Amino acid sequence: MATGNSELPQLHPIKGFKLGTTSAGIKTPGRPDLVIMEVSEGSSVAALFTKNAFCAAPVTVCKQRLSRCRPRYLVTNTGNANAGTGEQGLLDATLTCSNLAALAGVDIDTILPFSTGVIGEPLPMDRLLGGLPGAFENLCESGWAQAAEGILTTDTRAKGSSVRFGDNTPITITGIAKGSGMIKPNMATMLAYIATDAALDDELLHLALTLATEKSFNRITVDSDTSTNDSVVLIATGASGVSIDETSFDNFVEHLCKVFTDLAQSIIRDGEGATKFVSVVIESAASQAEALQVAYTIAESPLVKTALSASDPNWGRILAAIGRSGVTDLDVNEVQLLLNSVLIADHGARASTYSEEAGKAAMQPEDIEIRVRLNRGSISETVWTTDLTNEYVRINAEYRT
Amino acid sequence: MATGNSELPQLHPIKGFKLGTTSAGIKTPGRPDLVIMEVSEGSSVAALFTKNAFCAAPVTVCKQRLSRCRPRYLVTNTGNANAGTGEQGLLDATLTCSNLAALAGVDIDTILPFSTGVIGEPLPMDRLLGGLPGAFENLCESGWAQAAEGILTTDTRAKGSSVRFGDNTPITITGIAKGSGMIKPNMATMLAYIATDAALDDELLHLALTLATEKSFNRITVDSDTSTNDSVVLIATGASGVSIDETSFDNFVEHLCKVFTDLAQSIIRDGEGATKFVSVVIESAASQAEALQVAYTIAESPLVKTALSASDPNWGRILAAIGRSGVTDLDVNEVQLLLNSVLIADHGARASTYSEEAGKAAMQPEDIEIRVRLNRGSISETVWTTDLTNEYVRINAEYRT
Repeated sequence: MATGNSELPQLHPIKGFKLGTTSAGIKTPGRPDLVIMEVSEGSSVAALFTKNAFCAAPVTVCKQRLSRCRPRYLVTNTGNANAGTGEQGLLDATLTCSNLAALAGVDIDTILPFSTGVIGEPLPMDRLLGGLPGAFENLCESGWAQAAEGILTTDTRAKGSSVRFGDNTPITITGIAKGSGMIKPNMATMLAYIATDAALDDELLHLALTLATEKSFNRITVDSDTSTNDSVVLIATGASGVSIDETSFDNFVEHLCKVFTDLAQSIIRDGEGATKFVSVVIESAASQAEALQVAYTIAESPLVKTALSASDPNWGRILAAIGRSGVTDLDVNEVQLLLNSVLIADHGARASTYSEEAGKAAMQPEDIEIRVRLNRGSISETVWTTDLTNEYVRINAEYRT
Repeated sequence: MATGNSELPQLHPIKGFKLGTTSAGIKTPGRPDLVIMEVSEGSSVAALFTKNAFCAAPVTVCKQRLSRCRPRYLVTNTGNANAGTGEQGLLDATLTCSNLAALAGVDIDTILPFSTGVIGEPLPMDRLLGGLPGAFENLCESGWAQAAEGILTTDTRAKGSSVRFGDNTPITITGIAKGSGMIKPNMATMLAYIATDAALDDELLHLALTLATEKSFNRITVDSDTSTNDSVVLIATGASGVSIDETSFDNFVEHLCKVFTDLAQSIIRDGEGATKFVSVVIESAASQAEALQVAYTIAESPLVKTALSASDPNWGRILAAIGRSGVTDLDVNEVQLLLNSVLIADHGARASTYSEEAGKAAMQPEDIEIRVRLNRGSISETVWTTDLTNEYVRINAEYRT
């Protein structure tokens, strides 16, 4: 199950950035599961990784390499997360990189490894290494759609977004992402790769990545479970000849946010078992921290999520979630609750204008907005989530069987 | 679905404490849904209530009354929580009390109201008030089992526990509780009433209640949702003639904890859709706070809970939950994980002695113990929870339909 449009949009190529995909047989025979990306010399690369203390071996390796030199290749396998694999996991990630380094004729330190899939199983190294030459041969600037397929696990659809803007010499930003379960990114989502042909220095690129991630991948939750492998990478090849400086930065970040938000919302639309796309909007909070606290408590409440799956305007569960979210000195009589613009609760009780029919009607669409006005400040925050369905339970009970 | 033994144990009467139950037609016609309890004059009563800011009208009323005088009657309706009902909810709770006060010939301030059921609907006052005389007529010291039935909502079985101890003049403690969903008590569970014929002054009784609650109702979670109506009440009638003082206090609390823990675990065994009873034991933590943080992150992870429902030793999800629980400077290489005494993970990876067969076998029993050794201190904590099944989703999607 999934919500919204399932078609991958047109993904504009980025000059100076190539992608090659193959089936190495790691996941299911014949399914694409190994992706190599080539970054042209002189490009800037910024990346953010999971804050989970049990981070995967490739995350550890990426962090070390990024502090040493500029990456030239990214290699991603799906079907196995290489997480919870201890010392052997680090050796396997390193061996993958050294094989690709030999193939590409570059230093091993310029290669970043990524993995996604089941946790705690050793990487099937024979198949992975055997697949590298095929993926390498397929490298081309038009390889985005195949790569978007090649990084999926329990996802039911590929996820991508692309924008082109600017009058004389346009800039292009294109990105792909994967993720469907174990989704509450903390710094970044499961895996996302975004490239632009604009030129940004390392510092500015990292700032752009942080700003865009904060409002996109760091605002989604399927099941409150932060993955061990979350990684988001932003590449700037500079091939358009347009340099981003302090005057053009805000405009660039605005377009970057569009791509990031598209990708983050695509992950929620394809959340495991999802039948609803839910925006939780908190208004007039006293601080960002309390706005997010209330938003996530609602978005992660199993009772709210099951009511959503039944299109049931069981607003008492939303009030209960707000009430337990831990906001200091919350005056419940000030709180207002709206479901898709219908005022449901007011002054700590059912709104006088509310009818069960209006509430039921508001819950029917696939896209639901839960809007909470705390009326104690001026801060707003939005978090996106899914409903909780039998299908989620089935997928995750049967995941390894 | 539920786990463990479904039979209500023998509930010893408590001299000086009577219970009367009737069907007022609030819930389903013919089902017991209204319970009055009578506390003999001179008894001490202590109570703890939910910390949810959206607390129910009866909780607000109870808190006011308890600060004013000693309760003589408790009145509980099921089928409707009288929460999210604003000003009208307070009027309805007060009207219930004034009717019972007239019937019993006592001051209204000596009556404590309790409600449980759907949130946000007005109390059906005609039926509730109409049922009071019947419940009042049924008051008797042997009314425990009927009352245990009368307070249930989505529960599939009545919950009670009773102990008798002491050589010459024994003391008896008996309690009943209800709760199955929206269970992560914060101070107290949904509803629990425990009475003893020991004599304790108000201060000692409150201390005993707090100590016993902390290790029982405050250590369980079904779905991380703290209810608006959580209340636990401890009554000491003193009718045994045995007074508890500082020398006998620890022994009394030990027996009290047995009853409290029995009741708390009964709620988990009857958790909505539960097929597993899960103890999450955290050992060698640096502090109680971090032990509980890790325990609840595991106990509330949808991915861990769905793996439990499938009897799948998907230990990678448990490591991922430990990793995201926010423990400062956690050294993952020190962490050890055991499932029903089988060592699963060690040094950040699968234990060398582990086999998938041993893991699968460990997950088959209905009762599962997840034991995590952080190896960074000397604090232990245990939290009890259930698995997450299709049945949980079904119950909560269909709750109001």
